[in-house]
Amino acid sequence: MREVTYSVQVEFGDCDPAGIVWFPNFFRWIDAASRHFFTTCGVPRWAETERTLGIIGTPLVDTQAKFLKIASYGDVLDIHTHIKEWRGKSFVQAYRVLRTTSEGADVILECEEVRIFAVRRTDTQGAPGIRAVAAPPEIRSLCE
Amino acid sequence: MREVTYSVQVEFGDCDPAGIVWFPNFFRWIDAASRHFFTTCGVPRWAETERTLGIIGTPLVDTQAKFLKIASYGDVLDIHTHIKEWRGKSFVQAYRVLRTTSEGADVILECEEVRIFAVRRTDTQGAPGIRAVAAPPEIRSLCE
Amino acid sequence: MREVTYSVQVEFGDCDPAGIVWFPNFFRWIDAASRHFFTTCGVPRWAETERTLGIIGTPLVDTQAKFLKIASYGDVLDIHTHIKEWRGKSFVQAYRVLRTTSEGADVILECEEVRIFAVRRTDTQGAPGIRAVAAPPEIRSLCE
Amino acid sequence: MREVTYSVQVEFGDCDPAGIVWFPNFFRWIDAASRHFFTTCGVPRWAETERTLGIIGTPLVDTQAKFLKIASYGDVLDIHTHIKEWRGKSFVQAYRVLRTTSEGADVILECEEVRIFAVRRTDTQGAPGIRAVAAPPEIRSLCE
Repeated sequence: MREVTYSVQVEFGDCDPAGIVWFPNFFRWIDAASRHFFTTCGVPRWAETERTLGIIGTPLVDTQAKFLKIASYGDVLDIHTHIKEWRGKSFVQAYRVLRTTSEGADVILECEEVRIFAVRRTDTQGAPGIRAVAAPPEIRSLCE
Repeated sequence: MREVTYSVQVEFGDCDPAGIVWFPNFFRWIDAASRHFFTTCGVPRWAETERTLGIIGTPLVDTQAKFLKIASYGDVLDIHTHIKEWRGKSFVQAYRVLRTTSEGADVILECEEVRIFAVRRTDTQGAPGIRAVAAPPEIRSLCE
Repeated sequence: MREVTYSVQVEFGDCDPAGIVWFPNFFRWIDAASRHFFTTCGVPRWAETERTLGIIGTPLVDTQAKFLKIASYGDVLDIHTHIKEWRGKSFVQAYRVLRTTSEGADVILECEEVRIFAVRRTDTQGAPGIRAVAAPPEIRSLCE
Repeated sequence: MREVTYSVQVEFGDCDPAGIVWFPNFFRWIDAASRHFFTTCGVPRWAETERTLGIIGTPLVDTQAKFLKIASYGDVLDIHTHIKEWRGKSFVQAYRVLRTTSEGADVILECEEVRIFAVRRTDTQGAPGIRAVAAPPEIRSLCE
């Protein structure tokens, strides 16, 4: 099981009037950690996989997150990411968001997602659409 | 059970290079729908509840979301919000995100959250902190 | 001179720890107002103009903004937009952001931008690129 | 003249359907670079300056930006920041956003802002307000 860490510095503008991280920003960082996982494993950027495999990205199907402690600006967060399970046309990606302190590490957030590898599907009206495909073996082998 | 609807117009900048809504934006809108629920029920803005009750907002403890269909810019989304359950020091807020079409309505997203009513707690180092309090009866009665 | 108004409700999460709108959010709303201007004038969404004219959008070349008063959550802002000048391969789009009050209207922000109509240009390495084209007459006539 | 550099990795979700950075994100990064400048110079976080000096942050009064080249996800951007001028109750902060390439560096964006040091001012209705104060000498000397 491969694990990749992505670090984030929390900024003033990431925090709300209560002075704590406004939670949608955690999902912004988790999405970056997801892509960073693939990039670190050697998967090319989605613009290139679109040309070679038709894959435009890994959109989310389902997410669950537990917010355990608050964070604020000035904090540095480490997001530990791995793929927990490969399924037929989807996979489970899991995240732990930690803040290192002088006494150890606080767990800020735990998240588990179901994502798919998506290719474009244009419907007859030209509206954008996507459909899931099985994880390409060349991508999957890079991530294990 | 009171239900409140909040509408959102999806913008170009809400979409990613795949041309579809970048998912953290859904959480941005869901958070707005959460606050809009309270406002529509007659709860004052958090700056005022902080003065009267100490309540600084309703931070998230836990969220689960299912992404059922994609959305793109130009779409108008209606977010239907209600409080599904009151617990001791938390409550469950539920959302359905719909896009009305000529044939009916597409369900884009379903989400269920656990939130708390939070008051400030400053630790000895002056770092920001929060703790949960029971839902104030005057707020709860407005929302039922 | 055609003027179009786009309205925005300021949300809790749009505000920073000082309790006021975090300024990058104004640019988010201004960009939405820019697209809303074209849509209201009858210009199709960019996904369609890409197919018919190659136009992928109207990226920014230059912006100037004056922040005159603060705004906070609960405020409703009206963004008044018009095209001030058509140039060879660019145009000037101007915005006034107003908050209506019981005594009249506060001017929150004034902004003036230079934008272009952009078509794709892929360089030899496949990196994304854009170049400016003259405003298509069919778009320009819709906006005057 | 002190100069501080802040680095940003552009993410997939920072880009729009045209595949390029959606411009409000540049202002998000510039605001982070502004705060990072003060932090690197030794200025405490705003939550602390609020307690000691009343200063809640450095809100924007005026900004001008030129967008010279596009950027896309995978790019690493270096934001070079300095204070160009101290005025009575405001100061000018300037930014150059560069992308290092094998042949040198591309200038992506240049930006110049007027900011103030702000303290809270609550009006009689309890609405949030701010006013500018002269740059505190202890802060100014750290930044020169």
